[in-house]
Amino acid sequence: MKTLKTQVAIIGAGPSGLLLGQLLHNAGIQTLMLERQSADYVQGRIRAGVLEQGMVDLLREAGVSQRMDAEGLVHDGFELALNGRLTHIDLKELTGGQSVMVYGQTEVTRDLMAARAAVGATTLYEAREVQLHDLKTDQPWLTFEHQGEVFRLECDYIAGCDGFHGVARQSIPAESLQVFERVYPFGWLGMLCDTPPVHPELVYARHPRGFALCSMRSATRSRYYLQVPADEPVSDWSDERFWAELKKRLPAELAETLVTGPSLEKSVAPLRSFVVEPMQYGRLFLLGDAAHIVPPTGAKGLNLAASDVSTLYRILLKVYGEGRVDLLEQYSAICLRRVWKAERFSWWMTSMMHQFPEADSFTQRIAESELDYFIHSRAGRQTIAENYVGLPYEAIE
Amino acid sequence: MKTLKTQVAIIGAGPSGLLLGQLLHNAGIQTLMLERQSADYVQGRIRAGVLEQGMVDLLREAGVSQRMDAEGLVHDGFELALNGRLTHIDLKELTGGQSVMVYGQTEVTRDLMAARAAVGATTLYEAREVQLHDLKTDQPWLTFEHQGEVFRLECDYIAGCDGFHGVARQSIPAESLQVFERVYPFGWLGMLCDTPPVHPELVYARHPRGFALCSMRSATRSRYYLQVPADEPVSDWSDERFWAELKKRLPAELAETLVTGPSLEKSVAPLRSFVVEPMQYGRLFLLGDAAHIVPPTGAKGLNLAASDVSTLYRILLKVYGEGRVDLLEQYSAICLRRVWKAERFSWWMTSMMHQFPEADSFTQRIAESELDYFIHSRAGRQTIAENYVGLPYEAIE
Repeated sequence: MKTLKTQVAIIGAGPSGLLLGQLLHNAGIQTLMLERQSADYVQGRIRAGVLEQGMVDLLREAGVSQRMDAEGLVHDGFELALNGRLTHIDLKELTGGQSVMVYGQTEVTRDLMAARAAVGATTLYEAREVQLHDLKTDQPWLTFEHQGEVFRLECDYIAGCDGFHGVARQSIPAESLQVFERVYPFGWLGMLCDTPPVHPELVYARHPRGFALCSMRSATRSRYYLQVPADEPVSDWSDERFWAELKKRLPAELAETLVTGPSLEKSVAPLRSFVVEPMQYGRLFLLGDAAHIVPPTGAKGLNLAASDVSTLYRILLKVYGEGRVDLLEQYSAICLRRVWKAERFSWWMTSMMHQFPEADSFTQRIAESELDYFIHSRAGRQTIAENYVGLPYEAIE
Repeated sequence: MKTLKTQVAIIGAGPSGLLLGQLLHNAGIQTLMLERQSADYVQGRIRAGVLEQGMVDLLREAGVSQRMDAEGLVHDGFELALNGRLTHIDLKELTGGQSVMVYGQTEVTRDLMAARAAVGATTLYEAREVQLHDLKTDQPWLTFEHQGEVFRLECDYIAGCDGFHGVARQSIPAESLQVFERVYPFGWLGMLCDTPPVHPELVYARHPRGFALCSMRSATRSRYYLQVPADEPVSDWSDERFWAELKKRLPAELAETLVTGPSLEKSVAPLRSFVVEPMQYGRLFLLGDAAHIVPPTGAKGLNLAASDVSTLYRILLKVYGEGRVDLLEQYSAICLRRVWKAERFSWWMTSMMHQFPEADSFTQRIAESELDYFIHSRAGRQTIAENYVGLPYEAIE
């Protein structure tokens, strides 16, 4: 068995692992990254596309923002479609100048992979049988197989950036974790298409037939979503059926101008809220989807991973730079305060905007009244806007 | 059978019926009021005690505010007790100068009864077997028994101010009403006591043992509430047990200074959300609890009745004064917009502040996160404050 050494072992080469790796590398802290999949697979995943100001700033801090700053679309607002009418949520005005950046997770990943390759930091793709050892000691280590060889990786700390199904969380004894979970009785059918977006801003539509979202990746590439039953087979949805259903759920002014075309990709994603507490176990730290899942309404998943990255990065900076090992124990508590606020907002947006098949008539009217109140009250719109652009990151002191 | 005539027949001599009667009388519109109970019974009911600015203004407009303005307590804020700490909700600052008036419903009723007696308008107490006839015609009429005699009362319009269990709503064919309802799995055990309030402002306390509310009627009379199971027998609660439990649910700083004493009254009230649509049927109009019930968290019940009174009063003014009979059909829609917003706020405050025995751990954390967010965000506190002082009444045009 070959032995490798690093300071911070990062499991998972998705955007959170890559961003953490880049920040640490720039600070002179060595990382080694293990990824179960191939580089092509990681790059091919189609995910979120709305970045909060905090994540944009962090990408800039990491020095990987050049293409995002050139090609990303700054959005100063978004639209809520209710009862056939559009209501503008003016993010910039309501938050005192903040906005979001529309730039696909696929692009963020590509930029981060290029940056990591450029600095020569190691990523081992298709690393199999990853196991974590001695997490509660000062000398944790991992074992894994790579290209037919078995390795031992010794490190100071392990960052679990390997998503909901990854090995990191599963390496923590179940009795040490408390799980909070809500599975929603529907999914999102997403479609990617090379057509111009129906509206320059994102449109979140509440409709008796179900929720719909009009999103985009660029001025010529659109991403549309429809609420469907959780077990809906994608094969039931021809492009024609998708476009026809989308038109029914949009206000007439949008349905009439919607440009349709052949889909590049279609898939159904389940909607789930999930949190584990704590987000750390000895020298293992969980980040992003490894620790928490949000339903996509409100676009918080990737952004929440970025704030975990920021927290762990700033703690490790002080640990390596100032010997502040006392901060390590605060990682989970600091992250969870922001995680739960984003979980709440995502749950709220999901509850307000979707049709719940089992909801009684009182619950339905309350959802309508809640939206009606929040949209017509300036303070209500402010609560939506300040959560949408992202609540501030906590300082590490 | 003796025949009586009036312009507006009012069923129920509680605060909403009395307030409507006084406003109409002042405008030269004749009313006759029927009340199932005795005057003493009506006056003895212990109910809410927090008046919104809109209701205060309406009482002033009706000319019955003299004692309220002298003895009522203007509250510019209230307290939320969470995790053992008090958070001040500064109503005045957050709403740009608005506040609420603490003045018991019992006192409002007494003032209105005195005013009605002073102007010599008729209230028939202990009116039995009230029945409503020909509501869908231009000449509705009622029959009832009073002191052994049977009467026929002819009128232009009927105002149903007779509460949740009254005859007014029950006189509407069931198929003409849509019912929205939520029954909460707990009740409030209330205690009235001649001791000084533990805090100059109302304190709403969220606690793992259950919700508690510290309220008051005056500087020397307190009203305290505890969340208890819905079917809790009052007899299980000695004064000693009540005080001991209340202390456990309050922050230490309050528990230590709480002045206890013998109770004047103790009772358990169930918590319910209830709305019927529409709030009118021909020439019958439903007001207050006859059309909608809110759980008491947020003190909206009496205030919502007052906004219904304002709406019907202003419509009838234009009907009698300007012949604007077209407005009559708008009564329900105008009321319901405000009703549902108050229902939402009452449901929200109830959901946030109480322990729900059946709630899963995710729901509990979401409730904690929601309160945490709303309390620490200025926009969040503003949404609480603007609902607590009362959303504006709609103009009748």
